[in-house]
Amino acid sequence: MTTQIDQVPSLEERLEQPEPRDMRADVVFAALSDPLRISIVQRLMSEGDDAFRSCTWVGIDRPKSTLTHHFRVLREAGIIEQRRYGTERRSRVRMDDLAARFPGLLEMVLAAPLG
Amino acid sequence: MTTQIDQVPSLEERLEQPEPRDMRADVVFAALSDPLRISIVQRLMSEGDDAFRSCTWVGIDRPKSTLTHHFRVLREAGIIEQRRYGTERRSRVRMDDLAARFPGLLEMVLAAPLG
Repeated sequence: MTTQIDQVPSLEERLEQPEPRDMRADVVFAALSDPLRISIVQRLMSEGDDAFRSCTWVGIDRPKSTLTHHFRVLREAGIIEQRRYGTERRSRVRMDDLAARFPGLLEMVLAAPLG
Repeated sequence: MTTQIDQVPSLEERLEQPEPRDMRADVVFAALSDPLRISIVQRLMSEGDDAFRSCTWVGIDRPKSTLTHHFRVLREAGIIEQRRYGTERRSRVRMDDLAARFPGLLEMVLAAPLG
């Protein structure tokens, strides 16, 4: 039982997200139907790696509650993974999961003409 | 002047749609954020050609007003073209325009896991 208690913090660390098999195309499209959310995904992929980045690093000038909402929509669709680091949340794009489930999607998002 | 009058019916024939350069990724994603609209696009592409098909041919069992709405959302995003044939509207997917503007999108829609 001690082992289970010890595991609680690590279970808490990653915020809830869908398994790849549960990702739905319509939900993913809905998450990408907002220019700001497309910008977040583009920015998270801009360095070409999958390191976890903070809201601050993403550098989109909106109120924290607004950003929290948009990151949550992306996470619940399966597009990003979020982890808690102390009081901060950091995010990365689930590049491997998305490439397997929706081939070509991330390339399209990266090249997305918004204007 | 007679020539201009004669052209009115042909101008009326194609319903309003965006030019490829005006298609926006966020608007296209929004149009595809509904499982029924994804199904319409999949069905229109199911024969592998770009012939114009009627609502009836698409064969989705919803009220006509509902289908009219969903086809309009797809047309205004640039995903389908609609023409009037007498009192009937027929539609086709703008495969060439979409392939040029959003490479990979139609392949993704065709393969889209919805459930």
